[in-house]
Amino acid sequence: MHSELHILEAFVTDNKKQIMTEVLSNRTRHVTIVLEDIFQPHNASATIRTADCLGVQDIHIIQNRNPFKPSKTVLRGAGKWMSLHEYKDGLIENVDINHPEDFPVHNTKKCLQSLKDQGYQLVATSPGEHSITLKELSLKQPTAFLFGTEAYGLTETALEMADETLRLPMVGFTESYNISVSVAITLSQTMRRLWDSDIEWHMSEDEQKALLTEWFKRAIGPVKASQILERNHYTKTSETR
Amino acid sequence: MHSELHILEAFVTDNKKQIMTEVLSNRTRHVTIVLEDIFQPHNASATIRTADCLGVQDIHIIQNRNPFKPSKTVLRGAGKWMSLHEYKDGLIENVDINHPEDFPVHNTKKCLQSLKDQGYQLVATSPGEHSITLKELSLKQPTAFLFGTEAYGLTETALEMADETLRLPMVGFTESYNISVSVAITLSQTMRRLWDSDIEWHMSEDEQKALLTEWFKRAIGPVKASQILERNHYTKTSETR
Repeated sequence: MHSELHILEAFVTDNKKQIMTEVLSNRTRHVTIVLEDIFQPHNASATIRTADCLGVQDIHIIQNRNPFKPSKTVLRGAGKWMSLHEYKDGLIENVDINHPEDFPVHNTKKCLQSLKDQGYQLVATSPGEHSITLKELSLKQPTAFLFGTEAYGLTETALEMADETLRLPMVGFTESYNISVSVAITLSQTMRRLWDSDIEWHMSEDEQKALLTEWFKRAIGPVKASQILERNHYTKTSETR
Repeated sequence: MHSELHILEAFVTDNKKQIMTEVLSNRTRHVTIVLEDIFQPHNASATIRTADCLGVQDIHIIQNRNPFKPSKTVLRGAGKWMSLHEYKDGLIENVDINHPEDFPVHNTKKCLQSLKDQGYQLVATSPGEHSITLKELSLKQPTAFLFGTEAYGLTETALEMADETLRLPMVGFTESYNISVSVAITLSQTMRRLWDSDIEWHMSEDEQKALLTEWFKRAIGPVKASQILERNHYTKTSETR
């Protein structure tokens, strides 16, 4: 029996297939990012674009109180090919921003526990006493970088669940980077190190096939793709009768 | 005779002086950035914050057709301490954006020639045939990184005047980074290399004194500072009579 991948392949142009195969060969799940309640659309958009450009496939989006709304342009572009994992059960809006210690964290717990269970080390980006630099961070284990909300940074829960706390270089008057800038500095240096290392950061063959199937579906359009698969299954079934 | 620096020093709190001295010791003019006609306020703001955080003092802002309007928040913050050099003679607005080849470049020429005259190598960020990677770029010479407008990149004039063309790593579907992200990747990796190198990137003692004087003026407020200097000059003059 043909796999979905082989059935759908015929409906994607050679040019697109070539681009996808090339991008896939540079894709990683060894590194991922987690965004906790960020709300500015341009930050969301720039972050998704950066992850795509650097080959990072997964973005985990925690929404305890801020719905995630990247600008539409990015979703037509980079976002279309990314795996965006949203955690948004029981979104609690209208939270009193004067009490960040009371911010809801139910989706933070769910997301971070899931990543721990998958074997990721959790690295919070936040200046603090016990923080280390990017250079000091070991990348042998799959690594998830955590970025907090624009005004308040990561919640206490996220900081407590993290295995490491990362400090980015900061020698000016300003005490923090813009979020999309933090993501860019962190991911560009991390990927540069991984590319130059012996660590196996590529996706497995099975993961690559599954992702390529998913990309084919998105390229063809989900509705048309499922019609193709259904029809093909029907034909195949009648043939084998 | 007392220098302006010593006269103004008495009007700045110890805490502020300590922060300024610390920041100053990490400040550089060995690296600078040039922004050509960027127009999104959040890009301008994030870029200024990033340069400040990484110790880059000068930003050159070319305005041929787009007035430079960073968000107010940043000008109250990071922007206050930066040296923003604007080139905006005869701003030509309402340019036909369908003909980027006809974009005005009078301020581009002026800015880039001035940097060349000061001994900077000009490095355009733009993917192209003859582009090199950040790793391949020599940093011995003072270096100015050029970033182009959001939709069209650098003008032909900027590309032609550049000594090198730089290519940032890009292995995804998207063909470009957000501008503030390009700046962040370029400056963070460049400063990391400079910090680890033997290249003398610090400002000279004279430059440091001049900048500290300027920061004192901004901290005190320009009007109050000039009143202090005038009064002091008057006293001193009458004393020496």
